[in-house]
Amino acid sequence: MDILHTIVATATPNGRGALAIIRISGKNAFEITEKCLKNKEKFIKAEANEIHLYLFKEKNDEVIDEVTAVKYIEPKSFTGENMVEIFCHGGLIIPKEIIKNLIEAGAKIAERGEFSKRAFLNGKMDLMKAEAIKGLIESSNDIENKAARNAYQGKYLEKIKKWIEQIKEIIYKIDAEIEFEEDIEKSDEKIKIELLKKGIEEEIKKRKEIKNMDYGMKIIIAGPTNAGKSTLFNYLLGTERSIVNEEAGTTRDIISERINIEGKELTLYDTAGIRETKNKIEIEGIKRSYETIKNSAAVIWVTSSDEEITEEEKKNIKTFGKKIICLINKNDIKENKEKEKFLNEEKIKFIKTSLKNGNKKEEIINEIKNIIKEIEVNIEIPDVLINERQEEIAKEILENIKMAEKYYEQKEISSMFLNKWLNAVESLFGKKDNEEIINKIFNSFCIGK
Amino acid sequence: MDILHTIVATATPNGRGALAIIRISGKNAFEITEKCLKNKEKFIKAEANEIHLYLFKEKNDEVIDEVTAVKYIEPKSFTGENMVEIFCHGGLIIPKEIIKNLIEAGAKIAERGEFSKRAFLNGKMDLMKAEAIKGLIESSNDIENKAARNAYQGKYLEKIKKWIEQIKEIIYKIDAEIEFEEDIEKSDEKIKIELLKKGIEEEIKKRKEIKNMDYGMKIIIAGPTNAGKSTLFNYLLGTERSIVNEEAGTTRDIISERINIEGKELTLYDTAGIRETKNKIEIEGIKRSYETIKNSAAVIWVTSSDEEITEEEKKNIKTFGKKIICLINKNDIKENKEKEKFLNEEKIKFIKTSLKNGNKKEEIINEIKNIIKEIEVNIEIPDVLINERQEEIAKEILENIKMAEKYYEQKEISSMFLNKWLNAVESLFGKKDNEEIINKIFNSFCIGK
Repeated sequence: MDILHTIVATATPNGRGALAIIRISGKNAFEITEKCLKNKEKFIKAEANEIHLYLFKEKNDEVIDEVTAVKYIEPKSFTGENMVEIFCHGGLIIPKEIIKNLIEAGAKIAERGEFSKRAFLNGKMDLMKAEAIKGLIESSNDIENKAARNAYQGKYLEKIKKWIEQIKEIIYKIDAEIEFEEDIEKSDEKIKIELLKKGIEEEIKKRKEIKNMDYGMKIIIAGPTNAGKSTLFNYLLGTERSIVNEEAGTTRDIISERINIEGKELTLYDTAGIRETKNKIEIEGIKRSYETIKNSAAVIWVTSSDEEITEEEKKNIKTFGKKIICLINKNDIKENKEKEKFLNEEKIKFIKTSLKNGNKKEEIINEIKNIIKEIEVNIEIPDVLINERQEEIAKEILENIKMAEKYYEQKEISSMFLNKWLNAVESLFGKKDNEEIINKIFNSFCIGK
Repeated sequence: MDILHTIVATATPNGRGALAIIRISGKNAFEITEKCLKNKEKFIKAEANEIHLYLFKEKNDEVIDEVTAVKYIEPKSFTGENMVEIFCHGGLIIPKEIIKNLIEAGAKIAERGEFSKRAFLNGKMDLMKAEAIKGLIESSNDIENKAARNAYQGKYLEKIKKWIEQIKEIIYKIDAEIEFEEDIEKSDEKIKIELLKKGIEEEIKKRKEIKNMDYGMKIIIAGPTNAGKSTLFNYLLGTERSIVNEEAGTTRDIISERINIEGKELTLYDTAGIRETKNKIEIEGIKRSYETIKNSAAVIWVTSSDEEITEEEKKNIKTFGKKIICLINKNDIKENKEKEKFLNEEKIKFIKTSLKNGNKKEEIINEIKNIIKEIEVNIEIPDVLINERQEEIAKEILENIKMAEKYYEQKEISSMFLNKWLNAVESLFGKKDNEEIINKIFNSFCIGK
């Protein structure tokens, strides 16, 4: 891999902000920076890790910006190479101009994730840690962030190292059995395999829960047709995103929006009303509603005061088995004691409201916040798996250990699967010689990372 | 003004980026930071202006992020107070969490522009420089940025100081005339006033040109109805922003979009077709087209091959007196030698095209780029005025100097206006005692600046 040239990129998001950070990494990082500084002697004399004020200039000596900058001497830097960080004024023009001049002075614009890739190739971090950094930056909610944070701090290391140790031990013993036909307590190895399998399954399960949290927890608005689901949806969104219509069955597609309730990112789904219908498009909509509900974290069931509760509705409410809040809407028209009685019996929290009149907005939002909190407390943060790649490998590991278990009596086959499994576990950390995979992984990073 | 508490804010734009900068300023900046670091001893021992790695933690001691941080000891900092800059991982969660913990440790979230305001109040910069920083960050094109850059580097200082010197001298002489009825060469003072007036008028004129560049140069698409203006507009935008309709006179409002042609930000206007009409709404649209053209930097005149050139069109093309490119559209239907002849005679560059078929896209874009370059070269960058406030003051200065000139023979009155004028000039730098004005100015800054 070509890590001979010196790379440059902005490490902060584009847009208007007071400051921006520009990173330069590679063997010519200092020389390239010097070329662009009016007071370069100061930079040359500066010690590593010292921040000083410099005048960043164009080729024609005109000053573009007053910046601060730090140099890091290899290997004591993020990438393990010589590095410079320039802190300049933000906005649309200055960072762009500075990058342009650094390129003219000999730097190349960095590819996505190229800083992290170099750190990985220079042995500054394994792939799990590099991916953890990506997770830290890209996580959109506390739970995802916590998983990435655990990974960044290396909580996976202990677990995986233990797996590897155990696998090696099992392989060693099985191979010994094959070669010397030694008499080893068979059950012991089998139990160990069983335990490892369970440990991996557990990680995959935790990962699945977290994956459901991409773009925040999924909250579904469901309920019978024409009960006011879209009114609630728009009301929480504060806009007119889905069309509210008095004809029953208006919302035929799943509509979703990301909202933020007091710093918690959520994805809110407005679903088709659930009712018996012969309209094909509507049937499709209802089918999708059920699928969406299956993958959601919580349901807000909206039902209307002026409609009788049907057996189907009772069944639905009971079977969701999820965190559920019930809104009895159109309370201004009439009360519905039967629905209240049913919900009380089922111990389901409900709020009587008139959504059209913006009634009890605060109470509804508070209830959503409470539900989120309850769910968050119960989510188990994975120790190992934080992304798709790792999950894929974990599934491969699981497959192999299952095969090793299945063919346990045929030692050669079992040993082969255990070795494949060991290989897969080790690839979690990344293998430097597989250029294609490495590039693919780091290309999914953001620029400047 | 309360500058007793310690403030905190993110100095980089929100969004997903590798890194973010968090600034803390005030007398407790160090203590507050220490409370949030797991390895605080390292921070306590660190010298000013040294960047080191720290573990930023929550109250419960759980590590949120591995960060780097620098401390600046007053008065050697941006604000002139004790300051800390924390460089943490970017994204939606971590900077927010770090701020939250710094607030729990005693910091207050900074108001807009509060860092710059403190720098101003602590005598680290005058108001012109503070505004220049705002200009640097907020400028959306090279020209605006260059004006802000000049200001940041203090090019205004020399000019304004000279103005002040000259005014004081004139006032001194006039006052002497009043008091001692000295015999001074009258014409000399009058010429000086005249020259000062011209200098200020020049600055205001330059400012006006630059102001027209807000959101980039304004490029107008104009021409007869149904010639293909909206097709061109959409085509440059790459979307279906304005409705294209075969009925003449479809585009009745001015539609504008910001586009970026090779790094140059432009505002592109699609105007109502210019033709004789009795439709009131259309007349309004055409009126607005003319007004927009008046304030634009260049016109792209779109005309159709299959329509005769009218005397009105000839008149329009001649009178715009602007940078103009002409597109003879619908060239696939027929040629129009008459239009070509007229444009050749008028020495107006034209391109024959069929916009519907995406013909000569590159040539059209190149021509737009050429025009932009030509215009940019001719724009004079102001030395003094870079924003509304400064322009307002300059107009006040101009008004006063005109009055001083007008009443030159009535020394007392003239002297009064000269003093008012001196006062106004000095207020360009900002007066620290006018809390209301100062707050208003800094409140227009971005957070973290």
